[in-house]
Amino acid sequence: MDSALRGLVVLGSTGSIGRQTLDVARGLRDRFRVVGLAAGRNVVALEQQVREFAPQLVASENEADYARLRSTLTTPMPAWATMEEMVSHPDVDLVVVATVATTGLMPTLAALRAGKTVALANKEVLVMAGHLITEAAERGNGQLRPIDSEHSAVWQCLWGEEHASIARIILTASGGAFRDRTPEELRWVTPEEALRHPTWQMGRKVTVDSATLLNKAFEAIEARWLFGVPFQSIEIVLHRQSIVHSLVEFKDGSIKAQMGMPDMRLPIQCALCYPERLPCPSVARLDLGRVGSLEFAVPDLRRLPCLRLGLEAGARGGTYPAVLAAADEAAVEHFLTGRLGFTEIGAVLEGALEAYRPSGDLSLSAVLEADGWGRAWAEDWVKAKT
Amino acid sequence: MDSALRGLVVLGSTGSIGRQTLDVARGLRDRFRVVGLAAGRNVVALEQQVREFAPQLVASENEADYARLRSTLTTPMPAWATMEEMVSHPDVDLVVVATVATTGLMPTLAALRAGKTVALANKEVLVMAGHLITEAAERGNGQLRPIDSEHSAVWQCLWGEEHASIARIILTASGGAFRDRTPEELRWVTPEEALRHPTWQMGRKVTVDSATLLNKAFEAIEARWLFGVPFQSIEIVLHRQSIVHSLVEFKDGSIKAQMGMPDMRLPIQCALCYPERLPCPSVARLDLGRVGSLEFAVPDLRRLPCLRLGLEAGARGGTYPAVLAAADEAAVEHFLTGRLGFTEIGAVLEGALEAYRPSGDLSLSAVLEADGWGRAWAEDWVKAKT
Repeated sequence: MDSALRGLVVLGSTGSIGRQTLDVARGLRDRFRVVGLAAGRNVVALEQQVREFAPQLVASENEADYARLRSTLTTPMPAWATMEEMVSHPDVDLVVVATVATTGLMPTLAALRAGKTVALANKEVLVMAGHLITEAAERGNGQLRPIDSEHSAVWQCLWGEEHASIARIILTASGGAFRDRTPEELRWVTPEEALRHPTWQMGRKVTVDSATLLNKAFEAIEARWLFGVPFQSIEIVLHRQSIVHSLVEFKDGSIKAQMGMPDMRLPIQCALCYPERLPCPSVARLDLGRVGSLEFAVPDLRRLPCLRLGLEAGARGGTYPAVLAAADEAAVEHFLTGRLGFTEIGAVLEGALEAYRPSGDLSLSAVLEADGWGRAWAEDWVKAKT
Repeated sequence: MDSALRGLVVLGSTGSIGRQTLDVARGLRDRFRVVGLAAGRNVVALEQQVREFAPQLVASENEADYARLRSTLTTPMPAWATMEEMVSHPDVDLVVVATVATTGLMPTLAALRAGKTVALANKEVLVMAGHLITEAAERGNGQLRPIDSEHSAVWQCLWGEEHASIARIILTASGGAFRDRTPEELRWVTPEEALRHPTWQMGRKVTVDSATLLNKAFEAIEARWLFGVPFQSIEIVLHRQSIVHSLVEFKDGSIKAQMGMPDMRLPIQCALCYPERLPCPSVARLDLGRVGSLEFAVPDLRRLPCLRLGLEAGARGGTYPAVLAAADEAAVEHFLTGRLGFTEIGAVLEGALEAYRPSGDLSLSAVLEADGWGRAWAEDWVKAKT
């Protein structure tokens, strides 16, 4: 193996961010070699990726997929590995965690403990266990880089700045699919409508979280851990166009913003190549003179119950965010299959936050327990309803 | 003298930027000691400043002012010095060049040759002699920091970035006092109207240059030298609100912007304290949600002859910018005294650029000669007219 090439693992390789990561890696073959790919259930897409990138290691949710891969693959067959084994492999330098929901937690911990650089796109990992993740990074000498466009923006604004200079982190929010709907109209929206995001192409779960704006509360919680700032110093501003990806205000009052066309390949490449900035020819250039105006507004928390609840969970801290994230995961699944109305997602979350009694224990097992509690609570809510 | 204190010199201390620099220095007495103050003709203001800051050295345009200072001052009398002597003094660490027009050139060269850090607010210095200034900084190990809000913005966006990553520098322009006037209306505007800048409080010369937008071409030329980029990679975008102070586009398509309320004390403090960011309590905080929208537009060069001519001089390079700056200095003076109409400033500049024949010599004497040529050309133009 060419020692100049950095070893790359993509967890969640067949999802939206995973596929775009491989798009970027395809253009950077002189810098990266794909060592491992882990997918969920889409074994057809995984097979294509294995054929193209010839990784040493492969994983999928269902071990039976391995037999299927072996029977169809004409290229050399990669070895089977768990995600934790894959990320700890000595040939690996950089791990992109683009799994959905809570599945990325254990492999992220494993990668950081093994001293790898982790480019994180999986919001729930930090929402659930930010304290454990940052601790693992410190102990294992691993590095954490954001992929989310908002956190990538904040990260880029902080290059060359001292941590003590940060006054506020300002996350921008497009407002999601339903930003122009009245509360009454929201009761009857369909999953199909929720999945039509106005500015970003993303996975299903995160697109629904964008419509409820809960994802923005998740991002505030992530930002707290990624950038080591008090939760109270993180603000959210509505910005319809998704061009200003986020901002940082410094102690002297100066504000830096990062902007660009809404295309995830840009923050992905940034996380892969830091501190180098390489041309990203497939991404359209932003022409401000043509854009004309950038709009900002203060979010109205009375109209956005999920955002309000998410921020409340973030302010409470501890295992509250884990409970909320798990309850949301279950609620969104039920919304997507039609068992739950859109506005009922907020009702599930509100109930979960009210009913939850944290033990104060912040260990990994306590976090997983909180996750299980939130999920079960949401399931019970849905069952009680139907 | 406390060795922890950095020695500060302010050239042009009674002008707009000079006074604001001393405002900032007043709040940073634990970091800076004012070693020298140089003023133009406002000896009354200089006397007050000497009383408050007790510098070791003082200068003004007219040496007779020294006798006047000595007769009225009750505090210890500072020594008289030329600006060049002042900036080279061993107690000096940082020199703020806030002189107007071409007077800052020689002291800036002297300061950089003496290895000082120069915070530059005097646009014409780099416009006239950017090649000599950057050469002096390199040879003398001096450092150059911008104070202009636009260049400070670019500078801040470049902290932590590699020089090779820069793709474009995008300077914002408010459009000046007459941004909403028709060409016909512009013919009859008065100096009083030209001095009413919509967003910034500045000196008279630079406010008129803002109204013609020539100052934006000057800034493009400055940016070329400050950031070592090809002139062609600098663009100008209209931005009425003067909130986004400028932007940098990187090779990957990512854009960083710096913003804040239009208040020069922020970039001044930034230049003084870099890399530290200290609270700037007197500067209002920017609240994007309240601002609502940030507007951008492409400038129409057909409607902005001075901007077009300035950019042309910048693209030609050599001593062309020196000629243009000198002709403009004379023309603006005549406009302010009523001898020249507003649109005639452009006619003077156009004539000067057309008539000038550069020798190709880029030495300091050639630059000063070009400066003299441009000034004389403008004077002749005005005489011929009247």
